[in-house]
Amino acid sequence: MKTTLVIGAAGMIGRKLVPKLEGELILHDVVPFEGASAVSDLSAPGEAEKLVASRPDVIFHLAAVVSGEAEADFEKGYRVNLDGTRRLFEAIRKQNYRPRVVFTSSIAVFGAPFPEAIGDEFLNAPLTSYGTQKAISELLLSDYSRRGFFDGVGIRLPTICVRPGKPNKAASGFFSGIIREPLNGQEAVLPVPESVRHWFASPRAAIGFLLHAARLDSARLGARRNLSMPGVAATVGEQIAALRRVAGDKAAGLIRREPDATIARIVEGWPQNFDASRALSLGFRADPSFEEIIRIHIEDALQGTSRPRPSSA
Amino acid sequence: MKTTLVIGAAGMIGRKLVPKLEGELILHDVVPFEGASAVSDLSAPGEAEKLVASRPDVIFHLAAVVSGEAEADFEKGYRVNLDGTRRLFEAIRKQNYRPRVVFTSSIAVFGAPFPEAIGDEFLNAPLTSYGTQKAISELLLSDYSRRGFFDGVGIRLPTICVRPGKPNKAASGFFSGIIREPLNGQEAVLPVPESVRHWFASPRAAIGFLLHAARLDSARLGARRNLSMPGVAATVGEQIAALRRVAGDKAAGLIRREPDATIARIVEGWPQNFDASRALSLGFRADPSFEEIIRIHIEDALQGTSRPRPSSA
Repeated sequence: MKTTLVIGAAGMIGRKLVPKLEGELILHDVVPFEGASAVSDLSAPGEAEKLVASRPDVIFHLAAVVSGEAEADFEKGYRVNLDGTRRLFEAIRKQNYRPRVVFTSSIAVFGAPFPEAIGDEFLNAPLTSYGTQKAISELLLSDYSRRGFFDGVGIRLPTICVRPGKPNKAASGFFSGIIREPLNGQEAVLPVPESVRHWFASPRAAIGFLLHAARLDSARLGARRNLSMPGVAATVGEQIAALRRVAGDKAAGLIRREPDATIARIVEGWPQNFDASRALSLGFRADPSFEEIIRIHIEDALQGTSRPRPSSA
Repeated sequence: MKTTLVIGAAGMIGRKLVPKLEGELILHDVVPFEGASAVSDLSAPGEAEKLVASRPDVIFHLAAVVSGEAEADFEKGYRVNLDGTRRLFEAIRKQNYRPRVVFTSSIAVFGAPFPEAIGDEFLNAPLTSYGTQKAISELLLSDYSRRGFFDGVGIRLPTICVRPGKPNKAASGFFSGIIREPLNGQEAVLPVPESVRHWFASPRAAIGFLLHAARLDSARLGARRNLSMPGVAATVGEQIAALRRVAGDKAAGLIRREPDATIARIVEGWPQNFDASRALSLGFRADPSFEEIIRIHIEDALQGTSRPRPSSA
């Protein structure tokens, strides 16, 4: 029977991925959670070695300090996101076998200025330490794969939308907030103009990417092991129009404009649109539209119900 | 008075750079050499801290395990080329000042397939561990510069030609060998077809790049701190034609064709041609032609003389 190790199993993606996995599972995170096989700091000496000692066939490496924290705490970001990843890769190398390693990278590996659509040959010029740590991990993943130490696939996730849960202080939080809060009958703050465009995938699409990355024929990847995932490009105006179509004027009316120059400036440096041809040709599938991203949130997070009824209902 | 630290001062580039520097010099290498201020392993704990303790104004980081060795000895390559560089950057960060750091990267950060000319926005997809280590160092250099820990400039050197000294076993050795040996009246082996094209700079041009990188206004760089240097694209056939023009038929006749499939396959994955627009707009200057590259070798390494006389002389 196949064994799968999930590192970062207690995170938003990990919690949604685990129920879809078959076979024996080893579940790890730095915070305690129900069903945990191991709770430890991946970047501490010896911890990665323990996790791969049983030679799991598939390893999902989802663990990371998020962007805001990696920017605020330089040393912690590098320790967890770079050293933790490198320790994991080294532990696998020393086990001398060849598992599939699926690594969640991020569109934060890209930094402005951008072309109209970021293609598969566009340079990694991150504008955050988080993006730098992800870009370095991608390079390591490719080199370790090329040398046969493991069989790696790196997937650059779009911004996940609609993130379930409570509002948070991340600069990107409003992209989900302006959908999630109104669907819950609550007010949401929009700090940027409606013209801001960004790149999205639903949590359901993200899990689809991970599962596909775990089983695709890596011979088709060649030496370039890291892929920008397909997504939906939408402006904030298009997000709101989709919300209006799905949940009515009352929901859309709960969005309060409160311009924030700091957030607007940060968001300006973020990718807006991709040409994800390679991933599409390898069978990765995006959400069909932003409207569908909202419907998925209603089905998966709100069990099919949202508070404000569509005005047409 | 300005203080300059040169790490890798005993290497081919370091030896040519040092005489061009003014002010107080701190010269470092892992091997003993005349004029050394310090001889140590940069990747050993505490060594980088010692080198920057006096807060040099300019730091040239030229030290590296070369491509072939980094491929043959995985652990040594990562220890010296990645950990050594990171230790240096960390030591500077902890000194809490902001020196200019000039880092010699390499066109090995690029891997096939390539466009007709590699532009400034082409992805880093190295096909060697050496190229991976250089690409990672570039990302660190940009992030440390963005955060204000130092003021870094990374320059991707073309293949240096004509390398002075004896023939070596590097896969790229023949590019210099087919010029250097005939100019010395010796036979040289050519292992690849004349159609192979590559990207060259003379040692003199390389020193010019380093000096320019040390003094350019880095505000003009923005967040993208690493630059492909301008060079001369030439096929092996064009190299030989230039040799014939400079040193005559007798010199060109000393090149013996001995096809080597292994070397031909390695060289296939190497960059052939660049569009180095950014570096040119920032004032970096390439050699005017491959013929001039040969003349520079005759002037600088052969003190103006070469053994086989031009057939027209």
